[in-house]
Parts: sequence; C-alpha cells; structure tokens
Amino acid sequence: MKILITGGAGFVGARLARTLLAGGTLAGRRIERLVLADLAAPPPDLHDDARVAARVEPLAATCEALRGEPFDGVFHLASAVSGECEADFDLGLRSNLDGTRALLDALRHRVQQGAAPARLVFSSSIAVFGPDPALPLPEVVGDDTIPAPQTSYGTQKLVCEHLVADYTRKGYVDGRAARLMTVTVRPGRPNGAASSFFSGMIREPLAGEEAVCPVSPDVRHPVSSPQRTVEGLIAVYEASREAFVGRSALNLPALNVSVQQMLDALEAVAGPRVRARVRFERDERIAGIVANWPRAASARRAAGLGLQPEARFEDIIRQYIADHAGTPALKGLEA
Amino acid sequence: MKILITGGAGFVGARLARTLLAGGTLAGRRIERLVLADLAAPPPDLHDDARVAARVEPLAATCEALRGEPFDGVFHLASAVSGECEADFDLGLRSNLDGTRALLDALRHRVQQGAAPARLVFSSSIAVFGPDPALPLPEVVGDDTIPAPQTSYGTQKLVCEHLVADYTRKGYVDGRAARLMTVTVRPGRPNGAASSFFSGMIREPLAGEEAVCPVSPDVRHPVSSPQRTVEGLIAVYEASREAFVGRSALNLPALNVSVQQMLDALEAVAGPRVRARVRFERDERIAGIVANWPRAASARRAAGLGLQPEARFEDIIRQYIADHAGTPALKGLEA
Repeated sequence: MKILITGGAGFVGARLARTLLAGGTLAGRRIERLVLADLAAPPPDLHDDARVAARVEPLAATCEALRGEPFDGVFHLASAVSGECEADFDLGLRSNLDGTRALLDALRHRVQQGAAPARLVFSSSIAVFGPDPALPLPEVVGDDTIPAPQTSYGTQKLVCEHLVADYTRKGYVDGRAARLMTVTVRPGRPNGAASSFFSGMIREPLAGEEAVCPVSPDVRHPVSSPQRTVEGLIAVYEASREAFVGRSALNLPALNVSVQQMLDALEAVAGPRVRARVRFERDERIAGIVANWPRAASARRAAGLGLQPEARFEDIIRQYIADHAGTPALKGLEA
Repeated sequence: MKILITGGAGFVGARLARTLLAGGTLAGRRIERLVLADLAAPPPDLHDDARVAARVEPLAATCEALRGEPFDGVFHLASAVSGECEADFDLGLRSNLDGTRALLDALRHRVQQGAAPARLVFSSSIAVFGPDPALPLPEVVGDDTIPAPQTSYGTQKLVCEHLVADYTRKGYVDGRAARLMTVTVRPGRPNGAASSFFSGMIREPLAGEEAVCPVSPDVRHPVSSPQRTVEGLIAVYEASREAFVGRSALNLPALNVSVQQMLDALEAVAGPRVRARVRFERDERIAGIVANWPRAASARRAAGLGLQPEARFEDIIRQYIADHAGTPALKGLEA
C-alpha cells in the first residue's frame, strides 16, 4: 500500500514514519511506499529507506499532484502552529484551512474519477476547546464537550474537523479527525507554538541549559508523549468506521498534569540539579493564551480503540531520555 | 447609518428590509441607506424607497466593492439552501463558505485600513445540529448543544459561525451568529430547501391547491414565523456584546410543533376543506434528511435578549393570512 504523510518531515510526522516503517504494515497491509511531503526534507534515516519518497514542496503542490496519483491512505499533519496563526492571520487561513480543503478536494477528485475513497487521518488539536462566556469550559474536556476555540489555530482545526466529516459523509474520503494533546517532550528548539514551553522546560535542563517557565506552577494541561501520540494516529487509521463511531472528532488520550508535577517528575528522573535550571518568569502573552486552554481532557472513544495515556509524567521524560541516549541533548544529566 | 443586507431580495431579507425601513432606525441610529445585495432585484416596494439601493450581482462582486465602501452594519443572509448544497457540493462550498469568507475579509480589509469594525449578523441555521452516533441529539437542542451537522449546508453554516467568531475575536468585525429556525409560512413557490414542505403544506391549501406532506404526521420540528425571525435578527444586531454573551452562536426562538399540530392549526384557522387539501405521500429523500434534524429547540440566550417564540402555530398561519389579505394566495379560503 501507498501512504502519504503531510508534514512528514516534522517531529510527529517523522516519528510516525519511523513507526510505520518499523512495523512494515498498516491496517494489515504491507507498506510499499511512504511519501513524506513537507516544506523541509525528511531526516536522513528516513530518506535512506528505500520505501520512502520525499516531496519537499508546499502543500498546494502536493495536493495538485495528488489529483493524478493514487494513495491508499493519508495522515494530514501539515499545519501552521498556534503562535504563527495568531501572529499572521492570513498564514493560518492559507496553511490550515485552504491547505486542508485543497487536500480534501484532491482526494475527492480521485473518487469522482472512479477511485475508492482514501483513508484520511486529520490531526486536530485540543486547541479546539476554549472558554466562551456562554459556554464555560468543563474541568475535563471530553469527546462530547462543545468546542469554542479561542485562537485562530483552534478555529481552523475545528473548521477542518467539520469539513473532513462532511467529505466523509459524501463518500469523498474515509476521514477521521483525532485531537492531539500537547505533545511533549519535543526535541530541538522552541517553535512558534504557544505550548512550546511544555517541552522546553524539560528539554533544556536535560541539555544543561537554563529554561524559563512562562506560566504559574499550578497550570494544568493535558499532554501526551510523542510515541503515544503516534500510536494514537495509527490506531485511528486502523479502526473500522464502526469502531471509530460516527464522524465527529475524538480526543487522543491525555495525561493531565500540572507544571509543578512536571517539574517534580523532572527532579525524580534527572535530579535536583537539572530541576534547578528551570525558573519561573511570567510571560503575559503566553499565560493569556494558556489560560484559555483546557486544564484536563478525557478520551472515552480513544479508550474504546484500546488507547491509553501514559500513567505518569516520569514515563514521558524517560521516553525522551531513551530517545536521546548518547547525544548532547542529555549532557545536563552528566556530572 | 448605512446597512447592507446580503440576500436582501430574498424572502427573509426583503422582510427584514421592510421592517428596518418602517422603523427608520437601528440600534438607536437613523437608517440613511439600505443596500440590498442579491442575485435578484428587490421587490418593487423596496426598490421605490429612496433610502434603498439595489445591487443585483453575485456576492463576490458585492464583497469586492465592500473593500472600498464603508458600512456600519451588515446582515449576511445570502446563502445556497440545503437541498441545493446536497445536490451540488461545489455550489455550497462556493456560495456559503467562500462567500462568507470573502465578506469577512472585505470587512477585515476596511479595519486594517483604519475603519471601525462593522457590526455583522450572520444567519446560521438549526441545520448545524444533527445526530452523530458518538453524539446523540438531545430531545431539545439548546445554545449549548454540540453541533454535528449531517448536511453540507449545516456544515457550511457551522464553519462560518466559527469564522465569524474568530474574526470577531481579532477585532476585524463585531460579529454575531444567530441560528434561524425553519421559517414558515414562506410565500411563493417551493425552493430547493428540504424543509420547503413545512411552508407548502400550509401555503398551497390556502391558495386552493393540493399539497403533499413527504413525512409522517408525528415529525416534530422547531419553526418560527417570518416576522419573529426578522425581529430576532434585529435584536441580535442591536444587542450589546455583553448582552449577546460571548462569541458563540445562539438559537433564535422556536415554536416546537409536530406536522399533525400544524395541520390541526390549519383546520382551526382555515377550516376542514382547506385542511383536506393536504395528503401524505412519503418522500424517502426528504424524510431521510428531516430524520436527522432536531425535533425541538430551546433559545435561552435569545430569551435573555427579550425574544420569545410564537405561542401557537395558529398565530403563524394568521400572520401569513394577514400578510396576503386580498391576494390570490388566499383564494382557497373562499367559498
């Protein structure tokens, strides 16, 4: 079978690609070809896999090509992130709304030419939830909580959830939208996401660097490790329509954790010297965005697909440490 | 002040225009200019009012012109209807999604040029609600019911609700989305809406014609008279942001009524001979669409704005009769 991952060179996309290639199959079929479409080239290990083809191009070009090229399945992860979308309104609309619609229309075009509908996993986000004065946010957001996004990013994700559902209803695609929790610990440098600090406050101290936490220690948030996130995307792909239940988006599993608990876990796993590299310095812009985010999430439908969150934040830190064994990313653990 | 009504030559739009012109003011300000933009010319009585300007053109042309032209407020009613959107997927996306976005972007453009944000009332629809297997529809859909549209029309309306909310959050427009109930009794001929029969089964017998009801008598549905609908749109426009509460869409008031109750009301108002002109003949296509619609709605936030539904369906029929006194539309009442 032939699979496309948009955003396939990104952090989640590349990890998804590695997991798929290591397993070799998806939904019981052998993966012959894995196309990674992104603005950047995929990491070398992926590039070197004979099954991988890289498309380094804008999503619009990928969608144009899709019209003439059959794929069995698509993971649509490409997206401008929350901070970018707040800073550049047009960028968000173009990348996230127009991009997803172009993808859906390319897949629809193939169906209208007689092809079977491709299976599509759309990566939505916990950011669809937010407090509207008329719709207060419950303490725990579930699959059946009414979304009221408070960012352009969250709005665009929600809009695309509904487009995916309608294209699915029409038979143009076999679409499933899954809401990612905040994925942590991300490697590399901070990105434009307002949630970037959730990774930075663990990643930087482990690398021996100082880190700033821009929100108060009692901030709670639903998070997920990279690996559980990728496993969730695969399980959503592999689910039958009946097991997915309906066409509305589902929450992926969340570990609901406070900033204080994250730091306690860091100390438990890496010691007090590493923990001491994190200081609190409030950033009103970030804190304002985060104040509108859910403090906890549940994932009943995902549990029905056999998906569970990590039990403890320590496990998430240990996953990051295992992933980076022997690299400078862990030099803060030495001595 | 200067007001634009998109879809201003349509049934609701023209009635809204007449009501505004008769009152002469909106939100305490004198209406100097009322622009009716539509694919069709407005009715002669509106055309003859010196305050009215007609723009007979596609919405895209109106939006283009809007970029250079100040308006204090906009009622955005222009829309392809549900039946059309099911039959022609591209038409729905183009008319309802792209059209609304072009309007929002035109209003945003003016704000980015330094203008104050225009006030915008977006006419959404009860069609945003539907049963998803993961999200069963409650017996009564409220402002806080999670929408899961089961038609392209409902999807597009919901998507636009969220775009209006986000453009409002960004300060590009002062937008308010109000969900219209099924407006009945509409005059004229059946249109492409799947709900068209709710008017036809009253209107045709009053005109002396046979009518077919394509669904069973126990079908229940939330409806509103044309006048209450127009009053709702005006109240939503006139509400302060605080009184509107938040940025999520609200339901306009509904009279929740069964087909049987509608026919009983017809008999009570117009007599058994008129009632006898309606026969039941199931249409699976229509019945299938209607089966996914809400059976009743509440409107708590609209009540907070002082809006109430009609007390009885008889009152809705009497409104139609009063509107059409002395015309052939009532010739079925004679003899």
